Amino acid sequence: MSEPLYHLDGDLVPASEATVSVDDRGFRYGDGAFETLRAYGGTVFEWEAHADRLEATCETLDLEHGLSRRDLCRRIEETLAENGLADAYVRLSITRGVQPGKLTPDPAVDPTVVVYAKPLPRGGLEGDPVWDGPATVETVETRRIPEAAIPATAKTHNYLNGILARNELSPGADEALLCDLEGAVSEGATSNVWFVTDGVLHTPTTDLSVLPGITRRVVLEVADEADLSVSKGRYEPEAVRTAEEVFLTNTTWEIRPVTAVDGVGLEVGPLTERLSRAFDERVERECY
Amino acid sequence: MSEPLYHLDGDLVPASEATVSVDDRGFRYGDGAFETLRAYGGTVFEWEAHADRLEATCETLDLEHGLSRRDLCRRIEETLAENGLADAYVRLSITRGVQPGKLTPDPAVDPTVVVYAKPLPRGGLEGDPVWDGPATVETVETRRIPEAAIPATAKTHNYLNGILARNELSPGADEALLCDLEGAVSEGATSNVWFVTDGVLHTPTTDLSVLPGITRRVVLEVADEADLSVSKGRYEPEAVRTAEEVFLTNTTWEIRPVTAVDGVGLEVGPLTERLSRAFDERVERECY
Repeated sequence: MSEPLYHLDGDLVPASEATVSVDDRGFRYGDGAFETLRAYGGTVFEWEAHADRLEATCETLDLEHGLSRRDLCRRIEETLAENGLADAYVRLSITRGVQPGKLTPDPAVDPTVVVYAKPLPRGGLEGDPVWDGPATVETVETRRIPEAAIPATAKTHNYLNGILARNELSPGADEALLCDLEGAVSEGATSNVWFVTDGVLHTPTTDLSVLPGITRRVVLEVADEADLSVSKGRYEPEAVRTAEEVFLTNTTWEIRPVTAVDGVGLEVGPLTERLSRAFDERVERECY
Repeated sequence: MSEPLYHLDGDLVPASEATVSVDDRGFRYGDGAFETLRAYGGTVFEWEAHADRLEATCETLDLEHGLSRRDLCRRIEETLAENGLADAYVRLSITRGVQPGKLTPDPAVDPTVVVYAKPLPRGGLEGDPVWDGPATVETVETRRIPEAAIPATAKTHNYLNGILARNELSPGADEALLCDLEGAVSEGATSNVWFVTDGVLHTPTTDLSVLPGITRRVVLEVADEADLSVSKGRYEPEAVRTAEEVFLTNTTWEIRPVTAVDGVGLEVGPLTERLSRAFDERVERECY
């Protein structure tokens, strides 16, 4: 297998040559925005939603990169095409680039733009899920960064909060469940969390410090289409621990069932399976 | 002037070749520790204190880089020597390096280690201060990340909280004063804050979310030697606004007087001047 190609500042380069200066603000401060995307059959799933969120992140960071949505999409498509990928994981990053050595950003930005793609076979209607198996989840001590410190809508290269949370996990556990400072369930380190109680689907409201996941939004839409009862609210970890079904969502995992929360086992339930199927149909409809 | 040399993973390389992979966790997640240091007359000021804090940061991140304190110091000394620097600003970074594309860190670390140095003439007893002039300071809406989300003792490549704070400043203002979620003054984006009221020196306690600055500690020591009254506590911004004297400390600025807080002007006072002189004498004693 030949070396994959990364899209770096407008050029496709071999992975080993995809480097940035140690003075890049992305490296020095994590001063950058990113999106994780999926391509199905060569089509980027929910591109406009990802582009919207990227725009929101850059607005929060006051990062005017000057690149059009169309240009960014073209770079992703080139990366997929040149690597011969149809079903893929894609990561798009934009940092504030190299600037004089001060923390205060300079408004004149020469951004660093990276697109990275790797094969990710489609699970979906005909295939296997991308995750190795259902997830085991544990609540952790690390609390989600509050809105007033860094807005949760911003998806940035500052990911230590999630890393500290993951570092608390027991060996073999897959995802950390973070609560906010008041003890309400917020989200996983890289995922949104959902649970079913008395047949009603629950997920933490984005009024809390919760990243508005693209997959979260799609699941809300397919749940609505399927006429399911959905509640967005503020929940204690105990509600998740005692739920009938629990699952996680993010772009990579899509819908990933949870079979243990803090050591309490549970089955993959009918609502999770129904939503997974509906999600797959949505992908089918949108990308093929 | 020839290109400066950076120390990268054990080798001295020209600045333009000092690059890291876009897959480096330092770039992807800001998953790294750093220290800002000063060299005076070729001697690294307070090296052991910086090495202690770096160790504490790496412990928080569970980052076992495997490098001895002596090895790190040698890299800094080589960087200074090869760039012909005696009075310098030094930045030392250690990231978790490249790992498979998962957020959860792998315990087996091949770290990225960067030392960067640039000339920084000594202010001190005989020279000019390194800052352009006294600082103007503004309180901001952005709140300091609380201890439970990311411990304040960790000095990491996740610096967006400070960047968001700096982005709020009016044009010309130098430093943002962050409060914690309860409204108590915490620190500047890159500095510790001090003020004088009724002849007593005040600085926020590290019981709050406050980085334990090395310069902060040295100032506490010289204040103690000078038999000054010092109070470490919890203060409202109003206390800073109405103070007789205000100054900031960090490794680069040393002691930087503040001549405006939220638009209210104040003079560089006698205690600030006395402490600046005592700090300079300490540098003199320790490094020459």
